[in-house]
Amino acid sequence: MTSFTPTPALDALLDLALTEDVGTGDVTTDATVPPDLQGVAHIEARQRLVLCGAPVVDRLLARRGAGAPAVEWLARDGDLVEKGSVVARLQGRFADILTLERTVLNLLQRMSGVATGTRAYVDAVAGTRARIVDTRKTLPGWRLLDKYAVRVGGGTNHRAALDGGVLIKDNHLAVAGGVTAAVAAARRHAPHVLRIEVEVEDEAGLDAALAAGADVVMLDNFGPDGVRRAVERTAGRAVLEASGGITLANVRAFAEAGVDVISVGALTHSAPAADLAIEIARA
Amino acid sequence: MTSFTPTPALDALLDLALTEDVGTGDVTTDATVPPDLQGVAHIEARQRLVLCGAPVVDRLLARRGAGAPAVEWLARDGDLVEKGSVVARLQGRFADILTLERTVLNLLQRMSGVATGTRAYVDAVAGTRARIVDTRKTLPGWRLLDKYAVRVGGGTNHRAALDGGVLIKDNHLAVAGGVTAAVAAARRHAPHVLRIEVEVEDEAGLDAALAAGADVVMLDNFGPDGVRRAVERTAGRAVLEASGGITLANVRAFAEAGVDVISVGALTHSAPAADLAIEIARA
Amino acid sequence: MTSFTPTPALDALLDLALTEDVGTGDVTTDATVPPDLQGVAHIEARQRLVLCGAPVVDRLLARRGAGAPAVEWLARDGDLVEKGSVVARLQGRFADILTLERTVLNLLQRMSGVATGTRAYVDAVAGTRARIVDTRKTLPGWRLLDKYAVRVGGGTNHRAALDGGVLIKDNHLAVAGGVTAAVAAARRHAPHVLRIEVEVEDEAGLDAALAAGADVVMLDNFGPDGVRRAVERTAGRAVLEASGGITLANVRAFAEAGVDVISVGALTHSAPAADLAIEIARA
Amino acid sequence: MTSFTPTPALDALLDLALTEDVGTGDVTTDATVPPDLQGVAHIEARQRLVLCGAPVVDRLLARRGAGAPAVEWLARDGDLVEKGSVVARLQGRFADILTLERTVLNLLQRMSGVATGTRAYVDAVAGTRARIVDTRKTLPGWRLLDKYAVRVGGGTNHRAALDGGVLIKDNHLAVAGGVTAAVAAARRHAPHVLRIEVEVEDEAGLDAALAAGADVVMLDNFGPDGVRRAVERTAGRAVLEASGGITLANVRAFAEAGVDVISVGALTHSAPAADLAIEIARA
Amino acid sequence: MTSFTPTPALDALLDLALTEDVGTGDVTTDATVPPDLQGVAHIEARQRLVLCGAPVVDRLLARRGAGAPAVEWLARDGDLVEKGSVVARLQGRFADILTLERTVLNLLQRMSGVATGTRAYVDAVAGTRARIVDTRKTLPGWRLLDKYAVRVGGGTNHRAALDGGVLIKDNHLAVAGGVTAAVAAARRHAPHVLRIEVEVEDEAGLDAALAAGADVVMLDNFGPDGVRRAVERTAGRAVLEASGGITLANVRAFAEAGVDVISVGALTHSAPAADLAIEIARA
Amino acid sequence: MTSFTPTPALDALLDLALTEDVGTGDVTTDATVPPDLQGVAHIEARQRLVLCGAPVVDRLLARRGAGAPAVEWLARDGDLVEKGSVVARLQGRFADILTLERTVLNLLQRMSGVATGTRAYVDAVAGTRARIVDTRKTLPGWRLLDKYAVRVGGGTNHRAALDGGVLIKDNHLAVAGGVTAAVAAARRHAPHVLRIEVEVEDEAGLDAALAAGADVVMLDNFGPDGVRRAVERTAGRAVLEASGGITLANVRAFAEAGVDVISVGALTHSAPAADLAIEIARA
Repeated sequence: MTSFTPTPALDALLDLALTEDVGTGDVTTDATVPPDLQGVAHIEARQRLVLCGAPVVDRLLARRGAGAPAVEWLARDGDLVEKGSVVARLQGRFADILTLERTVLNLLQRMSGVATGTRAYVDAVAGTRARIVDTRKTLPGWRLLDKYAVRVGGGTNHRAALDGGVLIKDNHLAVAGGVTAAVAAARRHAPHVLRIEVEVEDEAGLDAALAAGADVVMLDNFGPDGVRRAVERTAGRAVLEASGGITLANVRAFAEAGVDVISVGALTHSAPAADLAIEIARA
Repeated sequence: MTSFTPTPALDALLDLALTEDVGTGDVTTDATVPPDLQGVAHIEARQRLVLCGAPVVDRLLARRGAGAPAVEWLARDGDLVEKGSVVARLQGRFADILTLERTVLNLLQRMSGVATGTRAYVDAVAGTRARIVDTRKTLPGWRLLDKYAVRVGGGTNHRAALDGGVLIKDNHLAVAGGVTAAVAAARRHAPHVLRIEVEVEDEAGLDAALAAGADVVMLDNFGPDGVRRAVERTAGRAVLEASGGITLANVRAFAEAGVDVISVGALTHSAPAADLAIEIARA
Repeated sequence: MTSFTPTPALDALLDLALTEDVGTGDVTTDATVPPDLQGVAHIEARQRLVLCGAPVVDRLLARRGAGAPAVEWLARDGDLVEKGSVVARLQGRFADILTLERTVLNLLQRMSGVATGTRAYVDAVAGTRARIVDTRKTLPGWRLLDKYAVRVGGGTNHRAALDGGVLIKDNHLAVAGGVTAAVAAARRHAPHVLRIEVEVEDEAGLDAALAAGADVVMLDNFGPDGVRRAVERTAGRAVLEASGGITLANVRAFAEAGVDVISVGALTHSAPAADLAIEIARA
Repeated sequence: MTSFTPTPALDALLDLALTEDVGTGDVTTDATVPPDLQGVAHIEARQRLVLCGAPVVDRLLARRGAGAPAVEWLARDGDLVEKGSVVARLQGRFADILTLERTVLNLLQRMSGVATGTRAYVDAVAGTRARIVDTRKTLPGWRLLDKYAVRVGGGTNHRAALDGGVLIKDNHLAVAGGVTAAVAAARRHAPHVLRIEVEVEDEAGLDAALAAGADVVMLDNFGPDGVRRAVERTAGRAVLEASGGITLANVRAFAEAGVDVISVGALTHSAPAADLAIEIARA
Repeated sequence: MTSFTPTPALDALLDLALTEDVGTGDVTTDATVPPDLQGVAHIEARQRLVLCGAPVVDRLLARRGAGAPAVEWLARDGDLVEKGSVVARLQGRFADILTLERTVLNLLQRMSGVATGTRAYVDAVAGTRARIVDTRKTLPGWRLLDKYAVRVGGGTNHRAALDGGVLIKDNHLAVAGGVTAAVAAARRHAPHVLRIEVEVEDEAGLDAALAAGADVVMLDNFGPDGVRRAVERTAGRAVLEASGGITLANVRAFAEAGVDVISVGALTHSAPAADLAIEIARA
Repeated sequence: MTSFTPTPALDALLDLALTEDVGTGDVTTDATVPPDLQGVAHIEARQRLVLCGAPVVDRLLARRGAGAPAVEWLARDGDLVEKGSVVARLQGRFADILTLERTVLNLLQRMSGVATGTRAYVDAVAGTRARIVDTRKTLPGWRLLDKYAVRVGGGTNHRAALDGGVLIKDNHLAVAGGVTAAVAAARRHAPHVLRIEVEVEDEAGLDAALAAGADVVMLDNFGPDGVRRAVERTAGRAVLEASGGITLANVRAFAEAGVDVISVGALTHSAPAADLAIEIARA
């Protein structure tokens, strides 16, 4: 049920993307390609990957208007496709396909990269109670797409923005007069549809957060053992989120420690591109 | 002489970035932080890195208007800073600093990540004639920033967009009737300020491109030995660019093969974030 | 701690507002007012009201650039000012003040109208546990400003947008296979920082929602007596929100019935303008 | 002949509206509704009202692109529909209808509210020579829609913006050196397609305006009796507009006093929402 | 009293202008100019011209932010400056001045070209009752600037847009059922602040328009003699506007025929650029 | 092979154009034309001209959405059409055609004017080796359209923007330490896909530029004889571009002097509109 919402902000990003890549036109193609020549193109996976970005490419093409290439998807977002698979077929003016090729690929490579990376973490914790979630460490301008790609990869999202969740960190605690006061203030002022999450550094912090009535506690840099102790200590009084220092190598240890949520910044801040390519031929 | 140009497109990207992170406001900070409380913050490098993004952060803050935090930079873009260094000092409303923290960091982490990665490639070819250049495999919306970060890291830029360079690939050759016709067409139609670059797959292609009068030849997946032979064969008749399969491990071998230009897509399509953080305190 | 966040979306709305009112220029003022003549203006309350909109006017003027009128506020957002009070003093080019007058007033009148109306509801429930909250029935384009005005009036906000809260209504229940399945699905897929709210029509619905583990239950059109029974029945197992049919005349009865949250669409969908005016004189 | 013009400014407002309501997506619907499930929805009037906003909803849906719900209108803008009437039928993805429901309703409720309120004033002056007109006291960002809704309600529009009419007020008179000089200056500098309107406070002002050759005179706060005397005094030498203190209760008295134009700020600055709702079912 | 209103639409045009000229940066200047080098520049008139565009250049520079070059104007918009005059002095980063040079000049050259051309027409009719006005034949995107430049040149503006004036042409007449019906319909539906103008092709049309009560009549292609006869025939019953076939050579004949308004499309649709240049030196 | 690329920047310009011409609606048409009446219109050339702008009009209409008039082109961009030719046929709502008429014509008149003027220069140098190119002296906001129109007229484009070509002028030379240093710096820092062009004032400058290894030399104000000497002196070592003082009267002399490229600012900075009109009738 991972649906994709095309927003005006996405349209703005796609406009930036096209503008920056095409500029005033593709001088090479203009000079060498007959404008009415038709072409077909295959988008291929050059590695095993979780496909992500099809509706974004659809939207990109729709913004080009009536004459844009038509696309037929042979795989859907979230499908795990093997190296060499054709995931889509484009048909239209040969010149247009050449001009759009790089923007289409750049979108798919980033998004499939994030989804594929997320899937690896999700698979690593399979069978445990832990869910893999993202952070706000997304690429500026890419929040919508990065968070969608995480969902496509099987993760779930942390808060979308600063207005979509309460997360009280040490800086808030310091000026609010302690965790009890901070949680009470958040309870009073924040929308009642939000849980109150508190970030803690150690077990004393956890105890204080639980005593203050936090709904969710973020265990920052606790390590798997620290997380296990925190889970026992909490005994279900709050949702627990592990954060900090989590890698594909150690994520299962965190999950087996019994934590509910594991947030991983690297899903989005350091995602390598997935390898896809476009093969074009005259129609 | 790597100057930074704040463009309207950058402003649009920064607006997207702020909007997506802040939404209608930071509910946690609103609930817990007195609005007039002043704060100071240090932006710190948590790893050795090439700083990049200072003028972008400046622009971001300027767009917030008169009451935005003031920033003093202790390092400049392009400086190699050590782990633990303070690179900037922010001063302003405590609440504002908290609200802007993540967007500021996301910008600096991406840009410093690209610059730091580029520097590694540049250092690896030091003393050779080769320059390290980027590709159009930048993040959609991020062309300006990614290319700037490459320059800050010591690289130079390939064409900015499809209107800023002629690069004839196999698809163009196929429909233009061969390399001689394609080069001639480009010579005739493209702006006379542009060189004509032709991508080739093998030595036969190189010979044909040279015969057609290409100014630049891209050697696609030639490997270091292939490049060396191509350099000898070309004997200065064209600028040579190596592309494909280049890693930090093998880039020096390519450079020592005598090529002029080495283009590396991973500089931008798979750059890991550099680690920076913000420490905040009441003023 | 009701802070105001100037967002790019607000800037876009202000640009629309100026454009639609000024068009290509104020022909009357151009024809009759010497361009360098200086003026001062007083913004006055023509009724008792809760002032709201000062930072929005500040932002509007800032977007006009260096030569815009300067404003000095004699009251702050949230202040209850009496009829006849001067709330601000503008100084600048006489012609500019005339040209901006209507846009400034239209902003302040709407926002102060919403804040003043909200204050009436908040005062009406003083001393009870109930908070007054808004809905998503805001004016299209005005979500940020309407919700800010509600806070300025002493209310708190419901979810900012569809991504900032889970509210399961009958339509969701119908297709999700009942309340137990719907709550479980929301628990599994939605960000873990969000509470799960369920809207119910009667006591059977309330029982089912509580059994399904809803964090918040919206009692739709229960009336004060129905709310009282629901409060007793719930016995603290969930936050209760009353919604539907609430007026200034009956809101206290709802509050005294013990409900936690009372949401009122009319705060924003039918707010009358507060009466403010600008008096201008030559400087 | 009240036609609707979709402008880029409207598109910008609709984009703001969708963005602010949907954010990055509807988490409730995503979690509980199968993405391919089809639905139908009826938009119903829950009170007697003048429908307004159909082409705006059409435009909103068009901006969502190819997959947006289709709408069939059973009533047209300007139709007086009875409580309980179905005014439109939507068909499309169930999830999309849920996600768009609130924005669609917020648009229709505001616009139908303005149109319905205007119709009441227009009906109240039926049979007289007076026309009901709006003012510039529209909601910032909503000028186009508010003025269109007034026309749909049977009113006519005052000037669209400061460049679409000359209205000389006391502030202009004070610095222009009196009404004769001000009218002459306006006659000389303003576009010759515009009438010259002068606002007056009393009969002496009216006499002076007529002597200066004003085409239109706005009688500010004259009351019905003052208006009647002004009409007699003017004897057709200028178009007369009554303004200030006009309510549904006294508007007929103004009209029967023989004035040509009655402008009513409350049509737009304090319009209550009309009550409409959407009923959704699986297709 | 020709004031200049910086609108959001102008900002959008300036953003387009900068973006299209600078792209991602000035590669020549980046490569050859030290970034901190200071410079001064003189903007010089290379022909006798009416200066126009100073506040637009100011706005352009303001949008560049804090570090943009400072400008001091030695002449003001509307000044007739001699060939060789320095009209402004820029000071700032040498690189910035080089990068902005062309955009600044392109703005000033177009606007001064329009103003200078308008001045020639205005001077040609000096001493007559005729005013020179523009048309809607402005450059798309340039309406505000073109109309401002006409005013700076001493002309006055026709309607700003289709909502700022009524002009009934043959197409309207044909479908409205004749001029009497058309004028009546316009009188009934259009804002009462607008005069009703009717375009006519011959004297019969003029008579009909006058009989229908037109406030303004546009005499299309009447020629000076036809205009003279029309003036006599009209005898002050309407404002008369001559249009079509008017050149600098024959405009005085039209004016001496007694017409009130002469509209000239060539003021804006075919204005040659005025010659200005920038001389730059190190500070 | 002159293809047209619809960019987001063009869409922004078209939005500005429509907004500024239509405002909130066409009051004349609203008052006089039945909204459902259908019409057809012919776009006619009123002079011999090179048609240009068809895809821009297509884009304009597409942005109006589903109900916009349909257009059928009887001539294509680049066609030389005779006076009196019908170049397109529009069909749709009569009111829509009237409302869009001026914007459509303003676009076509400007673009066909540029194309027609360019064709005259191109024809004048027929049979020589010279190509006619544009400059950056385009109308702000119109770079894309002006450069496209030049291509449609048979010209070729100089660099699109400051990032699409290296052109070293005297100001760069002065601060870079002479032409050898400047060319070397550009060679080192600028994208390797760009040629290095140097502007020179005399033969000594030419010699220095050639010695420095310039790829292209711009001969500024050399006159035909100077150009001839420069061509001989250069003997094929660089591409030569003549610039400055070139008119339709003398352009052939420049071409016959053997220069490769002739750049003409007047193609775009002073292009007169081509004469086109729209004839409308009821369908």
